[in-house]
Amino acid sequence: MENGDEMNPFELRHQVRSGAFRQPTAGYCGDYAQANLVILPAQHASDFLLFCQRNPRACPLLAVGEPGQWQIDRLGADLDLRSDTPGYNIYRHGELAEQVHNLYEVWRDDLVAFAIGCSFSFEHMLMAAGIPLRHIEQRRNVAMYRTNIANAAAGPFAGQMVVSMRPMKAADAIRAVQITSRFPAVHGAPVHLGDPALIGIADISRPDYGDPVEIMPDEIPVFWACGVTPQEAIRHARLPLVITHQPGYMLVTDILNASLAAF
Amino acid sequence: MENGDEMNPFELRHQVRSGAFRQPTAGYCGDYAQANLVILPAQHASDFLLFCQRNPRACPLLAVGEPGQWQIDRLGADLDLRSDTPGYNIYRHGELAEQVHNLYEVWRDDLVAFAIGCSFSFEHMLMAAGIPLRHIEQRRNVAMYRTNIANAAAGPFAGQMVVSMRPMKAADAIRAVQITSRFPAVHGAPVHLGDPALIGIADISRPDYGDPVEIMPDEIPVFWACGVTPQEAIRHARLPLVITHQPGYMLVTDILNASLAAF
Repeated sequence: MENGDEMNPFELRHQVRSGAFRQPTAGYCGDYAQANLVILPAQHASDFLLFCQRNPRACPLLAVGEPGQWQIDRLGADLDLRSDTPGYNIYRHGELAEQVHNLYEVWRDDLVAFAIGCSFSFEHMLMAAGIPLRHIEQRRNVAMYRTNIANAAAGPFAGQMVVSMRPMKAADAIRAVQITSRFPAVHGAPVHLGDPALIGIADISRPDYGDPVEIMPDEIPVFWACGVTPQEAIRHARLPLVITHQPGYMLVTDILNASLAAF
Repeated sequence: MENGDEMNPFELRHQVRSGAFRQPTAGYCGDYAQANLVILPAQHASDFLLFCQRNPRACPLLAVGEPGQWQIDRLGADLDLRSDTPGYNIYRHGELAEQVHNLYEVWRDDLVAFAIGCSFSFEHMLMAAGIPLRHIEQRRNVAMYRTNIANAAAGPFAGQMVVSMRPMKAADAIRAVQITSRFPAVHGAPVHLGDPALIGIADISRPDYGDPVEIMPDEIPVFWACGVTPQEAIRHARLPLVITHQPGYMLVTDILNASLAAF
């Protein structure tokens, strides 16, 4: 398999499609946005679209397809949503039923795909600005936590916001607010910083998802709304069928991160 | 004296000039920038200009005059720097020698005036965004602290940064970073938030200038570079003559705060 920096998103997707690339996408095609994927039947699509509209920090939408549409121009040339993500989770009635590498057999004409912005985009921007990210330095998954911040409900979709946490020095935290504020399409500004208990996190050393990461005495924990939020809401909705990407195995799009800057 | 909201800056300055207005300017002409004033002999002006350039967060320059110039178009129509500030401090060899209401007797052809942005501008923006500011609610002066953050020296001007502190909830602190980042001409983004000890503040309940303010358990202290920084640097330089405004008795300019937005 080729080096990530040498592949463009088109090439990476074709390697995924052929089965040559079956690993997490972090670190590949860093200039381009990677997307969380949610695919569900059209009868629930308008409720989920409303859920995303009402919870834009956790569920910033990069694109939404038409029923049955597995190619969305906005996301990439020659893209196939059925095959271009290195791993898919299939949930039935809220339970993980299968993990597959393509959706050719499960695809239906009533399925609607949602591509949701991913923190990989702003992490790339933070590192480009010289802000160290410990979980990346230590090659771990980012630490994620359930909070007591209620999502705005829409149909069967509700639940609490999930956040990712990155420890940083205060001056870097201020710079990180500035940088990520420019990118509302990939979660935007932090939702909290400082005392974890104020958003319902009892023990910062025990994340609900991902890996724990040390917070140094001169650092402050900074929390962003996380793309796991919609997955939690979807599972709790217990729909007969929902398909997502496997966490970390993202859809790599043709959208330049820099093009997502709101200002 | 007329109500502050009814006066425009031109009218306020004329009331100041006539002696009808001799009080702090906070709360007057809220849509317009108020300025810290530093006036010193031309022989030290280039060093002080360099000091401001090297310490832009503490010393954001709105305007600099030519030697002897007491009218600066950029600051306001029909403005007279010798009379339009409600109170002036005259320092001789670093000591406060006199407090006067105008500079007619002390003005010289070699004096250079520096107008430095003031946090009143961004406080107006924060309150307009619904962020409560406790020192204003309690009608106190903002709490200010000497830090261990060294200024970049220029000629005789050096010393440490002075910061102002405003306690706020984390979500408001994040919003405040966004709002104040747009206004580098009035100190811009915070320089620190969270643990005061990390910037050399031993006791947050005892400010070095201004009034103490309570920090609630669900709040975080947020620190901005403060316009008192250049005054400290100037006093420590012990020049034969320096003139400043009296703290709180600012020069009210014709510059709309909104026009200072960098983006």
